[in-house]
Amino acid sequence: MDQLGEERRKAQFDVDDMKIVWAGSRHNFEVSDRMAKLVASDPGFRKDTRTMLARKELFKNTLRKAAYAWKRIVELRLSEEEASKLRFYVDETAFTDLHWGMFVPAIKGQGTEEQQQKWLPLAYKMKIIGCYAQTELGHGSNVQGLETTATFDHQTDEFVMHSPTLTSSKWWPGGLGKASTHAVVYARLITDDQDQGIHGFIVQLRSLEDHLPLPGITIGDIGMKFGNGGYNTMDNGVLRLDHVRIPRSHMLMRVLQVTREGKCIQSDVPRQLVYGTMVYVRQAIVADASCALSRAVCIATRYSAVRRQFGSQNGGPETQVIDYKTQQNRLFPLLASAYAFRFVGEWLNWLYTDVTQRLQANDFSTLPEAHACTAGLKSLTTTATADGIEECRKLCGGHGYLCSSGLPELFAVYVPACTYEGDNTVLLLQVARFLIKTVSQLGSEKKPVGTTSYMGRVEHLMQCRSDTQRAEDWLKPSAILEAFEARATRMSVACAQKLSKFSNPEEGFAELSADLVEAAVAHCQLIVVTKFLEKLQQEIPGKGVKQQLEALCNIYALFLLHKYQGDFLATGCITSKQASLANDQLRSLYSQVRPNAIALVDAFNHTDHFLGSILGCYDGNVYPKLYEAAWKDPLNDSVVPDGYHEYIRPLLKQELRTARL
Amino acid sequence: MDQLGEERRKAQFDVDDMKIVWAGSRHNFEVSDRMAKLVASDPGFRKDTRTMLARKELFKNTLRKAAYAWKRIVELRLSEEEASKLRFYVDETAFTDLHWGMFVPAIKGQGTEEQQQKWLPLAYKMKIIGCYAQTELGHGSNVQGLETTATFDHQTDEFVMHSPTLTSSKWWPGGLGKASTHAVVYARLITDDQDQGIHGFIVQLRSLEDHLPLPGITIGDIGMKFGNGGYNTMDNGVLRLDHVRIPRSHMLMRVLQVTREGKCIQSDVPRQLVYGTMVYVRQAIVADASCALSRAVCIATRYSAVRRQFGSQNGGPETQVIDYKTQQNRLFPLLASAYAFRFVGEWLNWLYTDVTQRLQANDFSTLPEAHACTAGLKSLTTTATADGIEECRKLCGGHGYLCSSGLPELFAVYVPACTYEGDNTVLLLQVARFLIKTVSQLGSEKKPVGTTSYMGRVEHLMQCRSDTQRAEDWLKPSAILEAFEARATRMSVACAQKLSKFSNPEEGFAELSADLVEAAVAHCQLIVVTKFLEKLQQEIPGKGVKQQLEALCNIYALFLLHKYQGDFLATGCITSKQASLANDQLRSLYSQVRPNAIALVDAFNHTDHFLGSILGCYDGNVYPKLYEAAWKDPLNDSVVPDGYHEYIRPLLKQELRTARL
Repeated sequence: MDQLGEERRKAQFDVDDMKIVWAGSRHNFEVSDRMAKLVASDPGFRKDTRTMLARKELFKNTLRKAAYAWKRIVELRLSEEEASKLRFYVDETAFTDLHWGMFVPAIKGQGTEEQQQKWLPLAYKMKIIGCYAQTELGHGSNVQGLETTATFDHQTDEFVMHSPTLTSSKWWPGGLGKASTHAVVYARLITDDQDQGIHGFIVQLRSLEDHLPLPGITIGDIGMKFGNGGYNTMDNGVLRLDHVRIPRSHMLMRVLQVTREGKCIQSDVPRQLVYGTMVYVRQAIVADASCALSRAVCIATRYSAVRRQFGSQNGGPETQVIDYKTQQNRLFPLLASAYAFRFVGEWLNWLYTDVTQRLQANDFSTLPEAHACTAGLKSLTTTATADGIEECRKLCGGHGYLCSSGLPELFAVYVPACTYEGDNTVLLLQVARFLIKTVSQLGSEKKPVGTTSYMGRVEHLMQCRSDTQRAEDWLKPSAILEAFEARATRMSVACAQKLSKFSNPEEGFAELSADLVEAAVAHCQLIVVTKFLEKLQQEIPGKGVKQQLEALCNIYALFLLHKYQGDFLATGCITSKQASLANDQLRSLYSQVRPNAIALVDAFNHTDHFLGSILGCYDGNVYPKLYEAAWKDPLNDSVVPDGYHEYIRPLLKQELRTARL
Repeated sequence: MDQLGEERRKAQFDVDDMKIVWAGSRHNFEVSDRMAKLVASDPGFRKDTRTMLARKELFKNTLRKAAYAWKRIVELRLSEEEASKLRFYVDETAFTDLHWGMFVPAIKGQGTEEQQQKWLPLAYKMKIIGCYAQTELGHGSNVQGLETTATFDHQTDEFVMHSPTLTSSKWWPGGLGKASTHAVVYARLITDDQDQGIHGFIVQLRSLEDHLPLPGITIGDIGMKFGNGGYNTMDNGVLRLDHVRIPRSHMLMRVLQVTREGKCIQSDVPRQLVYGTMVYVRQAIVADASCALSRAVCIATRYSAVRRQFGSQNGGPETQVIDYKTQQNRLFPLLASAYAFRFVGEWLNWLYTDVTQRLQANDFSTLPEAHACTAGLKSLTTTATADGIEECRKLCGGHGYLCSSGLPELFAVYVPACTYEGDNTVLLLQVARFLIKTVSQLGSEKKPVGTTSYMGRVEHLMQCRSDTQRAEDWLKPSAILEAFEARATRMSVACAQKLSKFSNPEEGFAELSADLVEAAVAHCQLIVVTKFLEKLQQEIPGKGVKQQLEALCNIYALFLLHKYQGDFLATGCITSKQASLANDQLRSLYSQVRPNAIALVDAFNHTDHFLGSILGCYDGNVYPKLYEAAWKDPLNDSVVPDGYHEYIRPLLKQELRTARL
C-alpha cells in the first residue's frame, strides 16, 4: 500500500528525468542504481539491527561485511567504479574505506614508480590492509607539529620510527586499531640530527601470519565514539612506536629522497602535488555532503507528508505536517541545499580534473584559488549538512529520536566531516587569507581568477544598489548574483580596510578572525549560488525538470539572503524593503515546490535499504512498520525485564535493606 | 598535577562567591554540593562504562542504580529536597524520573482529596511505580486528538480502556516499557456515547506479584534511541489496551467528576490549573537547560585551555586554543548563555510561585502572559542549549567525538528537550499568537502586563533610534534594552500589520508563520536580556563577582545583537555603523573574560563524576587520561580481534571463495 501515491501523482515533472540530472549522467545513474539494488537485495548486507549491537558484535559484523563485499566484488568481477559504488551502498564505515581511500592514494601520490610497483599489487589484492596514520593525540590541524620521529641510521640503512612522547601517539587513524597490517606513518624525518620535516613511511604493524603486533608496536582501538552504530564500526586506533626499524626503501620518496649516505635530495616533482590531492579529497567530501543531506531530507520530506497533526475540520483528516509554512521554511531550503551541493560538487569534480591537467603541464597559476575554493566549500557544505541532518531529525518530531528513523545514526556518522580533513573554522580562515590577498592585489597586474573573478568588478560592486522593486524581481539571476557578489566583495574589502590599521598584520588577522570567517562564508555561499545558476544555463533535458531546479535555486539563494540579511543590509547591498520583498517571494516559491516535494526526493533514487529509515520508507507505511520494529529491541526478548528479581521486586516489596545492589 | 592551576590564578574574582550566586543561595549550594559529592564518591553510581554497554546490560544497570539510590535515600533519611538532588546527580535517566516528576504530580494536581489519600502513600513509598501515558503513535502535540477511549459502563460502574486503532497505541511514555506497575493513561472519556474530551485514568499495568502484564494489556519498549547510553537507560514504552476495565474511581476527578449514573459534573476547581502545571514543568526545563549548557561549556572551556595548536615561537609551547578569537567568539557567548539561562530560570521559578498564589486567590489575569512567557523561554533555552552542546563538542575538535569526552552523550540525552513538553516551533507560534493579541489591544483599556509591558511604550519604541556613538556606549543597559525592545516591538507590529491584510486571520497566521516565529524569538531574547540586567540591579555579594556578570551579560546581549543584526537593521533600530561598534565592543569583552574563563566554569561546581568527561576534568590532565581510557574499550579485550580468523585472515590469504560469510 503506497501511502504516498497521491503525493507522487501531484508532481509536475518527470521524476525519471530528474534522477539522471541528480546522478550527473545516465551512466552514473545506471551504475549506482544497479549497485544500490544489488546491496539492498542481499541479506548479507542487512543493517537494521546495527544500532542495537554492542561494540564487539558490531565490529565483528563489520569485518564480515567487508569480507563479504570483497568476495562479491571478486565473484562478480566488478569494475573499480562498480566496486567503489558497491562499498558505498553497503553504507558501513570500515577499515576498507581507509585502505582504498587513503592508503592506496598515498602510495600512488607519494611513492616512487618502484615503490608503487612493489606495494600497489599487494594492496589491490588486499594481501595487505593499509591505513593512514597522520593525526596524533596532541596534533591534528597542525601537521607540521607532529612529534613522531623517523631517524635515519647510517649503519643499518634503516629508519628508526619512534613515539618520543605520550602526545606523539598516533590517535584516530581509521583501520589502525584492529584491522590493518600496514600503515603510512607520517613522521618527522631526521638525518644527521637535522629535522627534515614531515614525511610518510610505510610501516608493517602486524604479522601477516597471526595478526599479532610486531615488536616495538603498541596498538589498540581508541574507544567508543558518538552514537550507536555509526562510526563504531570503525577501529580508529592508537599506535605507539618504540624504536621500530624499517628499511630505508619504506620512506615514500616521490618528492624527497634520502640516499644511502643519508643525504636528502629534492626530486623535480613539484611539491604542489600535495594540494592536488587535497582538492581531490575535499571534492569527494562535498559530493558526500550532498548525498548525506539528501538522505535526511528524503526521510523528513516523506514523513512530513505522512504525518498529520491538528487542523481536522468536520471530523476529516488532520493537516499534513508538510503543509505548515513553518515546516516548509525549515525543510525546503534543505531540499534546495541538497541539490545546490550536488551541482557544486559536480563542478568541483571538473575543477579537480582541470587542476590535475594544469599541474601536469607545470601550470600552478590556478592552484591557490582552487585550493581556497575547495577548502571553503568543504567547510560550508559539511557544516550545513551536519546542521541540516539534525534539523531534519527535529522536523520528524519525537519519532525522529528513534534509531529506527535512521536520522540519529546518520547524524552521528556524518558530523566528523566538520572536523576531519581540515577543521571547518581553520579552513574558513585559509579562505579569508586568500580573499584578503586577492583584495590587496586588486588594481595590480594580477587579476583575480576563477571563483574570485567577480572581484575584478570591485568598483561597481562597492557602489551598486539592487534595483529590485517587486517580489518577482528577485527571480532574476542577475539580481541575485549582484546582491551576493556585492555582499561578498564589501565584506572582504571591509576586513582588508580594518586589517590595514594594524601595524602587525598577523595580530590584526588574529584579532579580526571572527569577521574574516564571516567574509569567507559570504564568498563560499556566492560560489554555490553561482554554480547553481550556471547549471541552469546548461541544457537540462526532461519534462518540467528545469522549472523545478529554477525554483530550488531561487529558494536556496533567497533563503540565504533572508538568513544573512544582516550582511546584505549592513553592507548596503539591499534595502530592508527589498529584503522583505525577497522574503515574500521565498514564501511563494515554497507553494510552488510543495506539490513536487515527494517527487523531488524520489529523484535521489535512494533504496529503503540505503536510507535505513522507517520514517522515510518509499511506501510511507510508517506506523505499522514503527510498531513492528519496536518488538525487535533486545529489551523485548522477555516480558519481565532482566533485573526485575534483583532490583524492581525488592523495591516494590520494601525489601531493599537486605538486597545486594 | 593541576594543569589548570595557572589559569585559576589569573581569575579576578572569588570563585567561591560566584558558586553561591550560580546556585541561587548558600542553602542551595550546600545541599547540591553535599549530594554531588555523595554520589561522586560512591562506586555504586559509577557511569564511566555506560556508553559501552549493550541495551539489556545498560537497562539492568539502571534498574540497579535506581534501587540503590532509593536504598541510600532511605538509609540516610534524606529530605525530599536532598533525595531529588541525589537523583539528579546520579545523572541517569530512569523510570523514577517519571514516577516522581509526572505520575506523582498528576495525582496531586488532578486527583481528588480521596484519590490522593489512596494513591500518594503507595507512590511515596514506591510500593507502586507509576508513569504518565499521554503521547500516542499518531498524536503528540495535538493532545485533543488522542484516540484512546475510556467508555463508561453503567452496568458495572467501570471504564473500559481501549486502543481502537494502531495509531492510538501509547508510544513514548518513559518507564512504561518495562518498569512501571501503574500509569496515568490519558484517554477520550465517553459517557452515553458522548465524547467528553481528554482525561486521566489510573490504570494498573502489571501484577504486583510477578510483574506480568494484566489481561488485555500489550506492553513493551519502543526500541533504541539516539546515542549510546543516553536515553537508552529509559524504557520508553508502547501500550495497547484491549477493553481493559478499571473502577470508576480510577478516573482523576478533581476537575470533572463522573457520577455513578454516568453524569459529568464540572467541579469548581478552575480548569486553568492545568496551565499552572505547565508553567511549573517548563520552568524546570529552563533550569535544566542552564545546567546542561554549563556542563558542555565547562568541558569545552577547560579543554580549550589545555589544548594547544599552532603558533609556537622559537620552539616554545604552542598557543592555547582558548586564545584564538574564533574559539572565543563561539565559546564565550555560550558561557554567557549558561549564566543568562540560569538567571532567567531563577526568575521563572519566582513567576511560578507568583502564578500559583494568584490562582489560589482566583486571579487569572497574569496567566496568559505567564504561559506565553514560559512557553517561549522553554523553546528559546532548549534550542540554544542543544545547539550549544553540539557547538562545544565541535570546539573540542576530534577528541570531542569520543564518548569519553562526555559530549556526545550529553547531546543525545539533551536534544529531546526541544521536542517534549511542547515542540519548540509549536510553542513559538503560541507566543506569537499572544504577541499579536497584545499588539491588537494596544491603545485599549487592557494594558500589556509582565514581560510584554514594554509594548505599552509602543509609540516611542516604533520611532526611537539608538544614540550609541562609541563602542563603549553599548555597555549601557539602557542602550541595550532600548534596542532589544524596539526590535521586538517592531517585528510584532509588522506581523500584525501584514496579518490585517488577510480577510481570514487564521489563513494569514498560517501564511506568515515563519515571520511570526521570528517575532516570538525576538521577544523571548528580550526577556532573557531583561532578566539578566535586572539580576545585576540586585545586590551581588562577593569580590569582583558583579563585574564578571556584567561582562557576561553584555556578551550575551551584544552577541545576539550581532547574530540577529538583520532584525535590528531591517527594523531601523540601529544603523550599520552602530552594529559595527557593538561588534567591536564584543571583541574587547572577550579579552576581559578570557583570564576569568576557567574560574567562571569552576563556579558551576561540577564534580568530575557529574561532568563525566576526560576533556573537562578539573585537573586538566587530559592526555594521559584519554590514553588510559582507550584500553578499556571491549574491542581491546584481545589484541587480535574477534572475527580475525573468520574474516580478516581469509581475506589476506585470498581464501574468501571458500569462506562462510
